[in-house]
Amino acid sequence: MGERIERVAVIGGGLIGASWAALFLAHGLTVAVHEPAADVAQGVARRVADAWPDLQALGLARGTFDAAQPRLTVTSDVAAALQTTDFVQECGPDRLPLKHRIIAAIEPHLKPEVIIASSSSALMPSEIQQGATHPDRILVGHPFNPPHLIPLVELVAGHATSQNAVERAQAFYHRLGREVIVPLREMRGHVANRLTAALYREAVHLVAEGIATVADVDRAISAGPGLRWALMGPHLTYYLGGGDGGLRHYLEHLGPAQEARWAELGAPRLDARTIAALVSGMDDALKGSTADTLAARRDAALVALLRAKADSGL
Amino acid sequence: MGERIERVAVIGGGLIGASWAALFLAHGLTVAVHEPAADVAQGVARRVADAWPDLQALGLARGTFDAAQPRLTVTSDVAAALQTTDFVQECGPDRLPLKHRIIAAIEPHLKPEVIIASSSSALMPSEIQQGATHPDRILVGHPFNPPHLIPLVELVAGHATSQNAVERAQAFYHRLGREVIVPLREMRGHVANRLTAALYREAVHLVAEGIATVADVDRAISAGPGLRWALMGPHLTYYLGGGDGGLRHYLEHLGPAQEARWAELGAPRLDARTIAALVSGMDDALKGSTADTLAARRDAALVALLRAKADSGL
Repeated sequence: MGERIERVAVIGGGLIGASWAALFLAHGLTVAVHEPAADVAQGVARRVADAWPDLQALGLARGTFDAAQPRLTVTSDVAAALQTTDFVQECGPDRLPLKHRIIAAIEPHLKPEVIIASSSSALMPSEIQQGATHPDRILVGHPFNPPHLIPLVELVAGHATSQNAVERAQAFYHRLGREVIVPLREMRGHVANRLTAALYREAVHLVAEGIATVADVDRAISAGPGLRWALMGPHLTYYLGGGDGGLRHYLEHLGPAQEARWAELGAPRLDARTIAALVSGMDDALKGSTADTLAARRDAALVALLRAKADSGL
Repeated sequence: MGERIERVAVIGGGLIGASWAALFLAHGLTVAVHEPAADVAQGVARRVADAWPDLQALGLARGTFDAAQPRLTVTSDVAAALQTTDFVQECGPDRLPLKHRIIAAIEPHLKPEVIIASSSSALMPSEIQQGATHPDRILVGHPFNPPHLIPLVELVAGHATSQNAVERAQAFYHRLGREVIVPLREMRGHVANRLTAALYREAVHLVAEGIATVADVDRAISAGPGLRWALMGPHLTYYLGGGDGGLRHYLEHLGPAQEARWAELGAPRLDARTIAALVSGMDDALKGSTADTLAARRDAALVALLRAKADSGL
């Protein structure tokens, strides 16, 4: 396709937008962040600077952030942010009327072929592109928090999205070292957040039923199967656990037991009693650690984990 | 309690039994493996030798396996295996009549206070201890494959299990560097395998419905939320994603959306059509890699991951 995306606009300068901006800057791109709220806008450069050492440790960022900073603009002026932009990463609030308002505001400033990739987790691309002037260039490019560290991008096409836009977006994200999956069709929650919701439902059920504490449910994952899931997904894990008979033999023989286990999984409600149990269990689990401390440790560990994984060939 | 467990019997020398044996030997214990099948028995020392370099890399094994080998006995003679044993880790086939037969066979050779910890994933301790002479010392000590690398042990008491046995087993597993969780009451699948089943159910649903390929569902985890789950469980992940309002605020405001998402999760059947889709999707995902190669890469990466995690303070 020969396209060379050099200038990216990020719409929304919150946690996700700033993290995307850091990733784009690390790859030598010129980035304009559009953020109407002054206090949020002021935090963008600091967030990018905070992300920079991790990007360097991963071999993604060349040079210092000070050297990269001239390539970063943060502005409340949409027209200025979108001038000569080659790609838009939209990170506004995840509500449909707001997405439609954002797209109506930015389309007049864009060349028709410029892709608008929405970071939306809750909305489907066919909804987002409704009423757009050029719906064919609108798709979902859903990252995971924090986008500059977690490689996954779910690239989802809506009914009106062109195959050309999907391919150009995929090539762009690959250039950024992202692990791109392209679902065969759109579904609420895309793929990863549906899997996350399934795990969380049973995690809530076990606490609500008094089977285990919040802390122990979490350790049951992070000291157990979660260690494997950082390396391989549930299908391959199940396959490797199945022994020498092959997956078909395993599923045909143990399938009924698996179905019986599924039938026994919980269907909790987030009622007042369950919320109280979750809140008090989380207080116990935190043992006084703050969210900021834990997020910083998580990010440091993620960098080490990603490096170890890259070395393993998985 | 002042107890010093020095001699451990492992009942069953398959994959799980041999991995437990490696962990016990690495900690300087004397290990007798009871395995009636000659071909399986012959493989035990090789499996332990294979595990040894990883145990050394994790700082768990002192010295070479050759030096440790005199502390390992593999025998088809139950009485010989159980002589002067301080702790039994039972790793027989996961079917209740067989568990009852094993316990009937080993109890006559044991001092009454010796704990029998079953590695069972599918059975509940109250079932396993039915009909035992000393049911109070029978509990579940469920590991994750491979037990010498994955730190989690689910320690589950049955109706007749004594608190003393739980505490002694917990102290023993802690001495082996295990991350022990003690569910507040027993439930089919304990804790971790229920969470695993919940994730797998949606992973199967997404393939069965044609939303994503087996390979992409797996990557959606291993390049996405799976990286975080190696470091922290679903509750803490959800808490950190919730922003500054606190967990109660988050659950009260976004709870209805979460419940709606749960209601849309799939309930697949493992029928012939779905099994065919899973098998063919796994073939595509493997791209010719063998299970042995992938398991070896997984174990190498697990060692690196566990070291990185230990350094992070999480």
